[in-house]
Amino acid sequence: MRQKQAFIPTMREIPADAEAISHQLLVKGGYIRQLTAGVYSFLPLGRRVLRSIEAIVREEIDRTGAQEVLLPALQPADLWQQSGRYEVYGPELVRLQDRSGREFALGPTHEEVITQLVAGEISTYRKLPVTLYQVQTKFRDERRPRFGLLRCREFVMKDAYSFDTDWEGLDMTYHAMYDAYHRIFERCGLQFRAVEADAGSIGGEGGTHEFMAIAESGEDDVVTCSCCTYAANMEKAISLETVKLSSGDGDVSAIVREKALLEQFHTPGLRTIEELTNGLGISSAELIKTLLYLADGKPVAVLVRGDHSINETKVLNALGAITLELADSETVKRVTGAGTGFAGPVGLTVPLLVDYEVSIMPTAIAGANMTDYHSRNVVPGRDFALAQVGDFRNVQEGDTCPSCTEGKLTIIRGIEIGHVFKLGTKYSEKLGAQFINSAGESLPMIMGCYGIGVSRLLSAIIEQNHDDAGMIWPASIAPYTVHLIPVAHQDAAQMEAAERLYAELTAAGIQVLLDDREERLGVKLKDSDLIGIPLRVVIGKGIAEGMVEWKKRSSSEPAERIAISEVLASVNAHIAGS
Amino acid sequence: MRQKQAFIPTMREIPADAEAISHQLLVKGGYIRQLTAGVYSFLPLGRRVLRSIEAIVREEIDRTGAQEVLLPALQPADLWQQSGRYEVYGPELVRLQDRSGREFALGPTHEEVITQLVAGEISTYRKLPVTLYQVQTKFRDERRPRFGLLRCREFVMKDAYSFDTDWEGLDMTYHAMYDAYHRIFERCGLQFRAVEADAGSIGGEGGTHEFMAIAESGEDDVVTCSCCTYAANMEKAISLETVKLSSGDGDVSAIVREKALLEQFHTPGLRTIEELTNGLGISSAELIKTLLYLADGKPVAVLVRGDHSINETKVLNALGAITLELADSETVKRVTGAGTGFAGPVGLTVPLLVDYEVSIMPTAIAGANMTDYHSRNVVPGRDFALAQVGDFRNVQEGDTCPSCTEGKLTIIRGIEIGHVFKLGTKYSEKLGAQFINSAGESLPMIMGCYGIGVSRLLSAIIEQNHDDAGMIWPASIAPYTVHLIPVAHQDAAQMEAAERLYAELTAAGIQVLLDDREERLGVKLKDSDLIGIPLRVVIGKGIAEGMVEWKKRSSSEPAERIAISEVLASVNAHIAGS
Repeated sequence: MRQKQAFIPTMREIPADAEAISHQLLVKGGYIRQLTAGVYSFLPLGRRVLRSIEAIVREEIDRTGAQEVLLPALQPADLWQQSGRYEVYGPELVRLQDRSGREFALGPTHEEVITQLVAGEISTYRKLPVTLYQVQTKFRDERRPRFGLLRCREFVMKDAYSFDTDWEGLDMTYHAMYDAYHRIFERCGLQFRAVEADAGSIGGEGGTHEFMAIAESGEDDVVTCSCCTYAANMEKAISLETVKLSSGDGDVSAIVREKALLEQFHTPGLRTIEELTNGLGISSAELIKTLLYLADGKPVAVLVRGDHSINETKVLNALGAITLELADSETVKRVTGAGTGFAGPVGLTVPLLVDYEVSIMPTAIAGANMTDYHSRNVVPGRDFALAQVGDFRNVQEGDTCPSCTEGKLTIIRGIEIGHVFKLGTKYSEKLGAQFINSAGESLPMIMGCYGIGVSRLLSAIIEQNHDDAGMIWPASIAPYTVHLIPVAHQDAAQMEAAERLYAELTAAGIQVLLDDREERLGVKLKDSDLIGIPLRVVIGKGIAEGMVEWKKRSSSEPAERIAISEVLASVNAHIAGS
Repeated sequence: MRQKQAFIPTMREIPADAEAISHQLLVKGGYIRQLTAGVYSFLPLGRRVLRSIEAIVREEIDRTGAQEVLLPALQPADLWQQSGRYEVYGPELVRLQDRSGREFALGPTHEEVITQLVAGEISTYRKLPVTLYQVQTKFRDERRPRFGLLRCREFVMKDAYSFDTDWEGLDMTYHAMYDAYHRIFERCGLQFRAVEADAGSIGGEGGTHEFMAIAESGEDDVVTCSCCTYAANMEKAISLETVKLSSGDGDVSAIVREKALLEQFHTPGLRTIEELTNGLGISSAELIKTLLYLADGKPVAVLVRGDHSINETKVLNALGAITLELADSETVKRVTGAGTGFAGPVGLTVPLLVDYEVSIMPTAIAGANMTDYHSRNVVPGRDFALAQVGDFRNVQEGDTCPSCTEGKLTIIRGIEIGHVFKLGTKYSEKLGAQFINSAGESLPMIMGCYGIGVSRLLSAIIEQNHDDAGMIWPASIAPYTVHLIPVAHQDAAQMEAAERLYAELTAAGIQVLLDDREERLGVKLKDSDLIGIPLRVVIGKGIAEGMVEWKKRSSSEPAERIAISEVLASVNAHIAGS
């Protein structure tokens, strides 16, 4: 492609609204443009990268034996009502009516459509297992779309769905997909971790892993061990301490509880943990943090130690609830009789969810359910019931690894780029995907689902592959492999050499961008670094001796002088080695 | 692919609701399944064909220098309001609100998005011309979706948009695209015609061509000449007779008009042209047909000769109106004072659009605007005004060709598979796509747009390539090139030979479907004919002598015996020759 004709609208300024570096670079480099919040157009460079990623995804998913389909975005609401997700999905599900007033959803995912499809076509074990996938546009009305392609309302996803006759079959399919994901992300040049994850609202009975690209800008916390391979996302991660408590290890009855009686004391204006520790000169581990939630609209109180944070996913799972939100101040007032910041477990009539670590506190300080008052000598089990004790907290740095039991847990940031999920029979039961086994019995198919955020990958890759000057694409998915830059467009010898090399490389099947613009060299090099093509060949005065300047975008070494006759071989060597 | 694992749910029955043969075969052959009216899932075979078509489209459009992008389906309503199409598009435009109540449309086409995009990025002639295209899913809430993939509510389209500095540039871009379309449709094995078309509601000042696949089941009438290359769609086609009248050729004043006075006569129950010609024993060419329409809500009357039919597109264009619909019976009653079937031009106070051929009638019979009465001796120009005379009728078989002026026009049926369109400045003016030319003047860009119904092509190709047994795919887009069928799955020699041949062909890059199912040969052959893979190799007892049966799906000749060692060469020869 000749750059004069190419639609690559690079910018000099950093777009005002772009927080994440990948978002900034994609806009600056002319890869994407926002149409409206969370909705982007892919310009030619962005489309090229997206197509390369799609091709890698297809190749590796095809290798698992999965077959490609293309399912509709327009989905009848009644199908979602059948699965029970029409209400549950909430405002993230884009809803609309057709001209006759019939309700539809725009697919955020395709469990319903694919399960109904397979239910209608397969009825015997002889035609199982089968795995179907697509690369398709999804719609989710995110509450807060941001970070460019990382959190969008319209995005490209690869989603696969497997149907097996038994759990052993699902295990095999799951692992084949798990391995394919490793190959895909490796080929995309990503540093990533497969982490244990929580099943979440999608439901399902089996295991699930998330694939996380390691990146500062990630929205997810990934918990890893300093010694072993343990890795889990924050929703799922558990510390050895909690494992021991949950297994009844250690004699809780041996804890020497405080004997002194509960008493209230005046704590005017001390609402937060920080205000309390500063104001009272105590450690946060001596406090009980009591937060009121509405779970499916009903108030509950969750208790964790003052130095811990609540893990809402664990609370949701323990309650079997669909929605969970912090109670508003009016509800707090109604339930506790006090202003926000003074809730405590003593005397509350709503269900109390008590974290293991709270349950073993000999004594604690907690809110008194009276504005500007706290209680001391609060003894778990004496002053409030331990009816529902469980793991309701996030692990924190320094907790012990539950796997090797020795390492310390570390928390790093990650971007979710894929997930694999054992769904089991949740959808097959609701949508009637039954099969007859070899014994003549009718059973629900055992399903798995497997997603990759294809357009999100662009951002994740840039988050890991950039410098101050711009993007640094791995050759496998770069929009072009070689950027060919004559120094002076008015120099006939340079332009001729550039054209000859362009023809030679292109004929060899190499993707080349030739900068034939009437711009100064500085502008050309700045654009080149910004858009991040892996190999740069500058043709300047040295061409009189047949020499050009060769530079890898990823290298901080200065450009090398090589013979123009060696360029093709060097390019091929680079592609083969990358 | 081994057929045992392949998801190819063929059926024996013809689906009840499928009218078009392509619709029947796509469903029977397991290529597509309907999710809801006008919304289809592409199963693996359908997806494979779609991907092959997409690849051909991309290759040929890339060759024109156009660059691929990917634009959003979710489009803010205010963008459509800016172009003036939000209301005009009517109920076909799918509308929705996001979680905050903001209005959106689901893109049925992308003029607005692309024009706004280019307007924001290009401001100088130096960066023009540029042509951008995408292969993307479109949404149109068709009033009557039908014929499978021929008229859908969700479908895959290739749409391209060009931006030039002047009309000469647009002409060049337009012709490059026109030529690319010829190559695309030829490579898809289609018989088609490029026909002159009407600009329609998309607007624009320049020319437009539609590409029509010739097919009985087509919804469009294509007008061609028996002698020359003239071809136009019905909306646009004009007869030599009309051309002459419109150019004032022939002395209209020389017509000897009837002298006798207008008189009414009793015609009880004679409402239609047929009832009148039968009841009165006259020819339909002696009648004036008067139809009342609501144009943008206001009543108008259109007059054509009784043997002609009204061309609503021509009426719309003459009026410069946006909507045109037949008046309901209440409006007819109010305007004419009579029941439906008795409208006539005499005494009507609404605007009269008089077809040329009516204007030259010496005398005629017409409705009397009184129930059960008609008028005779109706003289145009005497009894009603000839204020707005024009071409308001469809051409008909036997009219004379306006191009060669000798041939007779013929009407055949076609499926619109593509169009190319000179938009001019309609969108660039409304959405501010201006550029500075070399003289420093600011001018609107000159646009073109170019569409191909990618998913519709599947159906069009089948309409032209099938027999009673099923589909017959051209090798260029077939889901597989070779169907390999061992006669007896329990015969080890046959299965081994099949597996060896499968490995040999696959290694050579040929797409092979191996029927390893435990089915009778009859079932296998029936399925094979149905799904229409171009080459079939049956491995039976002959394998003892190294022989197999070779058959082309497109040939009615019986299968040939060839050596298994010759299969690869024969397959390659077929691909090269097709």
